[in-house]
Amino acid sequence: MNRLNRLIPASVWLKDYTRADMQTDMMASIIVTIMLIPQSLAYAMLAGLPPAVGLYASILPLIAYALFGSSRTLAVGPVAVVSMMTGTAALQFATPNTGEYLAVVILLAAISGLFLLLMGLFKLGFLANLLSHPVISGFISASAILIALGQIKHILGIQASGHNLIEMLETMWHNLGTTNITTVGIGFGAIIALHLLRKHLKSILMGLGLSDHQAQLASKAGPVLVVVIATLTVAALQLNNVGVKIVGDVPSGLPPLTLPSLDIDLALNLLPAAILISIVGFVESVSVAQSFAAKRRQSIDPNQELVGLGAANLSSALSGGFPVTGGFSRSVVSFDAGAKTPMTGVFTAILILLTLSFLTGAFYYLPKAVLAATIIVAVVQLIDLKGFIEVWRYSKQDASALIATFLVVLLIGVEAGIITGVSLSLLLFLWHASHPHIAVVGRVAGTEHFRNVERFQVETMNELLTVRIDESLFFANARVLEDNISTLVSKNKEVKDVVLMCTAVNMIDASALESLEMICSRLKSTGIKMHLSEVKGPVMDRLKGSNLISHLSGNIYLTQNQAFEDLCQNKG
Amino acid sequence: MNRLNRLIPASVWLKDYTRADMQTDMMASIIVTIMLIPQSLAYAMLAGLPPAVGLYASILPLIAYALFGSSRTLAVGPVAVVSMMTGTAALQFATPNTGEYLAVVILLAAISGLFLLLMGLFKLGFLANLLSHPVISGFISASAILIALGQIKHILGIQASGHNLIEMLETMWHNLGTTNITTVGIGFGAIIALHLLRKHLKSILMGLGLSDHQAQLASKAGPVLVVVIATLTVAALQLNNVGVKIVGDVPSGLPPLTLPSLDIDLALNLLPAAILISIVGFVESVSVAQSFAAKRRQSIDPNQELVGLGAANLSSALSGGFPVTGGFSRSVVSFDAGAKTPMTGVFTAILILLTLSFLTGAFYYLPKAVLAATIIVAVVQLIDLKGFIEVWRYSKQDASALIATFLVVLLIGVEAGIITGVSLSLLLFLWHASHPHIAVVGRVAGTEHFRNVERFQVETMNELLTVRIDESLFFANARVLEDNISTLVSKNKEVKDVVLMCTAVNMIDASALESLEMICSRLKSTGIKMHLSEVKGPVMDRLKGSNLISHLSGNIYLTQNQAFEDLCQNKG
Repeated sequence: MNRLNRLIPASVWLKDYTRADMQTDMMASIIVTIMLIPQSLAYAMLAGLPPAVGLYASILPLIAYALFGSSRTLAVGPVAVVSMMTGTAALQFATPNTGEYLAVVILLAAISGLFLLLMGLFKLGFLANLLSHPVISGFISASAILIALGQIKHILGIQASGHNLIEMLETMWHNLGTTNITTVGIGFGAIIALHLLRKHLKSILMGLGLSDHQAQLASKAGPVLVVVIATLTVAALQLNNVGVKIVGDVPSGLPPLTLPSLDIDLALNLLPAAILISIVGFVESVSVAQSFAAKRRQSIDPNQELVGLGAANLSSALSGGFPVTGGFSRSVVSFDAGAKTPMTGVFTAILILLTLSFLTGAFYYLPKAVLAATIIVAVVQLIDLKGFIEVWRYSKQDASALIATFLVVLLIGVEAGIITGVSLSLLLFLWHASHPHIAVVGRVAGTEHFRNVERFQVETMNELLTVRIDESLFFANARVLEDNISTLVSKNKEVKDVVLMCTAVNMIDASALESLEMICSRLKSTGIKMHLSEVKGPVMDRLKGSNLISHLSGNIYLTQNQAFEDLCQNKG
Repeated sequence: MNRLNRLIPASVWLKDYTRADMQTDMMASIIVTIMLIPQSLAYAMLAGLPPAVGLYASILPLIAYALFGSSRTLAVGPVAVVSMMTGTAALQFATPNTGEYLAVVILLAAISGLFLLLMGLFKLGFLANLLSHPVISGFISASAILIALGQIKHILGIQASGHNLIEMLETMWHNLGTTNITTVGIGFGAIIALHLLRKHLKSILMGLGLSDHQAQLASKAGPVLVVVIATLTVAALQLNNVGVKIVGDVPSGLPPLTLPSLDIDLALNLLPAAILISIVGFVESVSVAQSFAAKRRQSIDPNQELVGLGAANLSSALSGGFPVTGGFSRSVVSFDAGAKTPMTGVFTAILILLTLSFLTGAFYYLPKAVLAATIIVAVVQLIDLKGFIEVWRYSKQDASALIATFLVVLLIGVEAGIITGVSLSLLLFLWHASHPHIAVVGRVAGTEHFRNVERFQVETMNELLTVRIDESLFFANARVLEDNISTLVSKNKEVKDVVLMCTAVNMIDASALESLEMICSRLKSTGIKMHLSEVKGPVMDRLKGSNLISHLSGNIYLTQNQAFEDLCQNKG
């Protein structure tokens, strides 16, 4: 791959771009735009921003990602969890619906974009792997609950705030008296309508004669249907005059050119939140990108993805937008609609631009309660109960990390939750690696296989002790090996030879090397020889020239069977 | 082992105690006491305490350890590094040589003792394994330098302070004008004498007719010789009148009964230091105990050691002492002197008690410069240059953790150094585990062995891709596997079967399980089957019943060769 391809992945697929591709992508982009508009308005509201900002964030970022991202199918824009995290972070520094708030959000997008870009350029993509699936699952489920709860205020037409469960419930309870009945009616009606359409619209359409594929696609337009009907209803009955909050005036025209504030103090204060937003966005985006890439036998370069998302967020910051990332539902729609290349994103951006220029009047009477309803119905799908049950059945260790993350996010907040989850996962992993499975093995009669004496009938000899270590050897488990061998040898006083079977030892670090040298010399001081068998190539490369090898009292055998044969022979 | 044995390990060896054993232990204890007295006075001074406290700390703690510790040979008492850490911690809360300072030190010993005891009772001994050998090496070398530098003020007869290199050098430079020439003469003279005796005394004694063993033992009395000569010189010439600082009045009589202060705030402030002192003390002590245990085919129970050391420190706190632990040099002397059981420690304690009661006058004219000289010569032995070179040759990764710990301890302080070392070691280990070695393998012709296609001439088939994973699969490397397989499959478009060879996969966590399920379904969606081979027993136990197994598109083979045969057959 030449230099240009590496810098701008778009050049790879652009050069083969045909007219047929263009037509397919344009068709797909129309469908994506229709689905995208209510979502963008809704997520902007979720982040405490004017709805127009959601549309701004769906223009330049899509073009930036199309140029620099590595996925052909991923659709980028505002998503639920990142929007919530943006709102939570910005709330600490400014009041919603003020110029200051928007400035904070833009700075957040800029820092996030810069961080993602630097991570990609320095190939640090692997750091995101520190978020295990159980931790992500717990985090997303708890975030979904927080998002849904946070939207209830729009359904009830009251004020409320808070960035964890307890604060939200408190403020809602406090303001319950100001509930607006009409809003509640619209909100609940929308929730029910959305739910029913989600479940049944596809079958209805197929009953009407559409093919499976067409019905699938069209059923995704459920939210648009509800939004249109609700807007017409509010407009016709002038329900905004009885307390139903509406989107109101959406400034028409191109997105503004905005420069992120150069307030260093504010930037440093926002840094932790920006980093977490970047990591969460990246992790979500890469999962989606990889599942689609597999379907097309393409491959994703996570570090290139970071560059693409970084560019998307930086351009969002420059066009009055807010943090964005690859979204699952919009990517599914894009894929189902037949999008061939990222040009789909470019066409979508153009269509949104046109919407902003000419169609903003259509949003005037759109009730906020309906946008809230679309969010609630969407995020409730994210609550991963099934995932929790599966993890619980497979590994209590992983399940505890999930539960801890879930509870901390819910009761304290998003940032504390992620840090808890990551720390706990790492500690549990280290604990597990510090307690390696070490088995005394013997030979299964008539074969060259060696198995655990506690599980199988095997041949052994009193003067020969063979120990198989099922873990890489490093400082956290080096002493465990020392203790184990000490104990085994003090229990078997006839032993004259000890063989360490290293088939599953993938690495030996400096501490473990010292431990092995110590084990060898301690055994030697009591007249016992130490041997090694089945040492892996890369491990042996490093061991050559070490004191362990030069002072090894015994031999190094290629296979365990050779060791057994050789050492038993000498006993006769 | 019955209940009593578990609670009080002493009961195990006490019941077999013979008169011959008693005589041997008594002889050994005399030798140990002679060597111990200057050391205890010196280390008390190192901790900023009156010399008598060093003797107090060598009485009850030895008895406590004899009752509750698990080593037959370990000799417990004040040691260099722990004494330095004690002094550094106490300095932050009180001025040396005041009643308040002593109270802080006693509280430190009490908290440390309690912490060690709880760690032992809750079987948390494995936590100390988080200190890798390179980190310990860097820490001890840097501490040795700090200790030696800290003693130079006694050699020069000036004031100085500081808990890192820079502060020490600054204050010494500042006070250089107050140097006392006589003190310098005594100090340097002592250093040279100690060094020469260390190197040559043994050969001189053997020349005089002593056996190797006797000469070895007697040569350890070098420091005592220097102390005696220096004390006599100062007394005869009344050098204390010309500015040579002396030990002075050592109160004779039993150690006081002291109760640790109940100041909760102070206790909480001291907690971090106490924890580090406990951990460092434990790590040092267990290393020594284990090397001696090996010589006698005994085994050490690290958690029992914690209980023993905890009891020692608690009793130190109750008898006006300071934090103690098992020491290398004193244990070597004890072992060489022929000590059979921990009764040696009890006899030593009694002898020290007698010294305190009747012989304290002998210390009056003992110059502090000589005590400082003994410390300097002793700790310089601790600087582990050889260890550093070995680690550097073996693993740059481990060497970087050593260097980082060394520099941080030297330039910032002990606590920061340990935290840096542990964090860096863990991060490097995780980084390594996150980048697993994954090899495409094929069969070595004429055998049943499978080897890396990049290293060996092997048989492969275009439709069959066998991937061997040399690492446990967990969240930090799960996506690496996904990416790897994605890439391999997108490069080899003819592949119809993928086999994951799991000989070295010691664990699969929930995240990795999900990754494997995703890999399987992505491969399935492009018509490729996924198979597993050589899955370890414990791993298979957990996999049973999981979605991976029920939805596995391919088969599970016991050996890789079976997989190869079966899948190649079908291609014909």
